[in-house]
Amino acid sequence: MKSFRKEIWVNVPSRRGFVNITPQVEEALRESGIHEGLCLVNPMHITASVFINDDERGLHFDYEKWLEELAPHEPISHYRHNDTGEDNADAHLKRQVMGREVVVAVTQGKLDFGTWEQIFYGEFDGLRRKRVLLKIIGE
Amino acid sequence: MKSFRKEIWVNVPSRRGFVNITPQVEEALRESGIHEGLCLVNPMHITASVFINDDERGLHFDYEKWLEELAPHEPISHYRHNDTGEDNADAHLKRQVMGREVVVAVTQGKLDFGTWEQIFYGEFDGLRRKRVLLKIIGE
Amino acid sequence: MKSFRKEIWVNVPSRRGFVNITPQVEEALRESGIHEGLCLVNPMHITASVFINDDERGLHFDYEKWLEELAPHEPISHYRHNDTGEDNADAHLKRQVMGREVVVAVTQGKLDFGTWEQIFYGEFDGLRRKRVLLKIIGE
Repeated sequence: MKSFRKEIWVNVPSRRGFVNITPQVEEALRESGIHEGLCLVNPMHITASVFINDDERGLHFDYEKWLEELAPHEPISHYRHNDTGEDNADAHLKRQVMGREVVVAVTQGKLDFGTWEQIFYGEFDGLRRKRVLLKIIGE
Repeated sequence: MKSFRKEIWVNVPSRRGFVNITPQVEEALRESGIHEGLCLVNPMHITASVFINDDERGLHFDYEKWLEELAPHEPISHYRHNDTGEDNADAHLKRQVMGREVVVAVTQGKLDFGTWEQIFYGEFDGLRRKRVLLKIIGE
Repeated sequence: MKSFRKEIWVNVPSRRGFVNITPQVEEALRESGIHEGLCLVNPMHITASVFINDDERGLHFDYEKWLEELAPHEPISHYRHNDTGEDNADAHLKRQVMGREVVVAVTQGKLDFGTWEQIFYGEFDGLRRKRVLLKIIGE
């Protein structure tokens, strides 16, 4: 069994945003030399998500609006977590809706995806550099 | 290390519905000959979920009603994704609540489940054939 | 390839609560002797979650309040699942928001975590002993 680890850095220049990281994951998979196995992708931060969905601008707008309805950023004082001096409680909630991680099958050296599957980093507390972890195991 | 891949086809004859795919996953696990490892199950589509919960009709009714409250199908014009000519933006949202994939432990050749755990395909944009991917790795 | 399995027992003395199980998962990882691989952690019950987030009391209060807004426990009669004699339909819904499982990278014999990542058991139908499954595969 082989294992491969890599960190990807992302920097979203706004509080919230979605970044398609599929090319970086595909590049890491090539570097790994693994042909059959599983690929885990997760943020190393707890106010962000990694998820799989469509690379379509309108949909990302819909996600943003919907998540703000489900867990509004303001008022900051609505959340007890923000009593600690943080202002990102909503980000911890949004991340649970969108999920922490994805596990993707690796088949014949490629991400084993349906037609429209793309991997996104979902930022809910941005304006700083953050890390995404890739771990691939297989042969 | 062994790896095994299989696609399962599902066809939900309505826009939304839940299908218990545990028997097909168990059959694939037997075919794989893998006794210890991990089993990934995910739809190859981005308007569907694979999740683990109870095979109880009342609960599925509750999920359906609740997801429609959280992310209503109509009005279609409520979502920017639907400006592309689609009418399934709500399905992309519902799929995030229910999750994309499950990873299940394989122990002594069986899905390592608690008493009530069953694997479901959750369809949010049906009326056509769709694929579920199984990838099992182990020994 | 090595594989390791262990069950952890938890007993939340109230209907709902969050328990940091990171120390038990770290202990199991040491027992396994696995240095590179993947670690799956999931409840064996369908009214509970395993998730990764912050060990901060205010945030847990926020999660509790938010989940009660998204899927209230009462009125019991609101849910068709409860027609079976259960009173835990809300717990099946809450568990979907928070997720079933986490998959964590294992690197150099440790959980490959960012600074604040901690593993929690989220109980939504407690007052009894429940099991969490750990499955670690790798080398």
